Amino acid sequence: MRIDVLTLFPELFPGPLGGSIVGRAVKQNRVEVNAVDIRSFAKDARGTVDEKPYGGGPGMLMVPDVLTEAIESVRKPGTVVILTSPRGEVFNQKLAAELAQAEHLVLVAGHYEGVDQRVIDLAIDREISLGDFVMSSGNIAAMAIADAVIRLLPGVLGDDESAVEESHSMGLLEYPQYTRPAEYRGCKVPEVLLGGDHGKIAEFRRREAEKVTRERRPDLWEKYLQTEMKER
Amino acid sequence: MRIDVLTLFPELFPGPLGGSIVGRAVKQNRVEVNAVDIRSFAKDARGTVDEKPYGGGPGMLMVPDVLTEAIESVRKPGTVVILTSPRGEVFNQKLAAELAQAEHLVLVAGHYEGVDQRVIDLAIDREISLGDFVMSSGNIAAMAIADAVIRLLPGVLGDDESAVEESHSMGLLEYPQYTRPAEYRGCKVPEVLLGGDHGKIAEFRRREAEKVTRERRPDLWEKYLQTEMKER
Repeated sequence: MRIDVLTLFPELFPGPLGGSIVGRAVKQNRVEVNAVDIRSFAKDARGTVDEKPYGGGPGMLMVPDVLTEAIESVRKPGTVVILTSPRGEVFNQKLAAELAQAEHLVLVAGHYEGVDQRVIDLAIDREISLGDFVMSSGNIAAMAIADAVIRLLPGVLGDDESAVEESHSMGLLEYPQYTRPAEYRGCKVPEVLLGGDHGKIAEFRRREAEKVTRERRPDLWEKYLQTEMKER
Repeated sequence: MRIDVLTLFPELFPGPLGGSIVGRAVKQNRVEVNAVDIRSFAKDARGTVDEKPYGGGPGMLMVPDVLTEAIESVRKPGTVVILTSPRGEVFNQKLAAELAQAEHLVLVAGHYEGVDQRVIDLAIDREISLGDFVMSSGNIAAMAIADAVIRLLPGVLGDDESAVEESHSMGLLEYPQYTRPAEYRGCKVPEVLLGGDHGKIAEFRRREAEKVTRERRPDLWEKYLQTEMKER
């Protein structure tokens, strides 16, 4: 896979995509991450990329020609061009898995107040939102999407790194986990985990995962119950 | 405000928090962002911070003593300690506004597979999730939370930068925006925005914001309708 990030702050990349599991994927050539400076497509010597919106209002918008041409400079047949935007579909693990199928992603890190709508109409395939909160730019959102997608590429996660995945894909939040020491500041590890009864351990974890999901995320819990019912 | 980020990758900070609007807030001393290396609290010369989970299963967990002591090294009265975790409450703008009231935030960037539950019981005030997707670590989530919170601090956003905010806080997605030129590749800016009738422009934008919200986010649309009803 190749990921091009179109940004006004190319120096932020690879940043967090350069280390840890994702950084290892880059080093193993499972993915190539490249930052493209939108400003290098500006039409004037001052590097202007934004203008005031028509109809008034606060903030500046990214102008249509500069951004469209920046996108076209990297687009190939089959490329999926994504704009990070609070107006987009909400990012989730299913969407990450879908994007992990693409050969080439272009992530456009949205500008403070937005981009001209015609860029979206002409050159953007999908608008994706991290969630219902506002950040000062789309750069961190682009990093989050890239990270979540890269770790799903074949061979990136070792067998010993995929637990969160499994728990999440079951539709439940993760059960509580414990490691050494068996007692810390008077808090003990649940007895069942210290024994070797794998059936009981699995039952304990399932029950705890259901409990935390029911308490914290009634929305996920409802979906989980519906899936369980269908399977019977 | 002061934000301490507890992480295994301190070199990633300030990273995206060093530039743009948020970077300006740092330079103006409206916020101080500091990375704390969790590994410096390890008990052995090798810097061990994780162990296998009790009860088996893939992955490694952050051990309780190292992380608890790292948190205690920065905690003061009134500090809010947050763990980024897929099990947490889902981050949104309301939560960002709430956190922006704190004097001191500690953001613990969660480890790959999680942390020992006793750290959560003993030292964590809130678990926050960016959304229903899995990243390779909590570092990008910590960046996202910090960015969304910092831009809400008093004086950080200029009057000309707050449009997205307003639209979002009305409970609607943003209306489409346009800037120069009036025609680009055959796509024209809607007529109404080129005139000077502010009433008509406001009406157009409201209608478009309602349309995009209804089409893309039935969940937000339902909430919006309920709020509208209450206000009448």
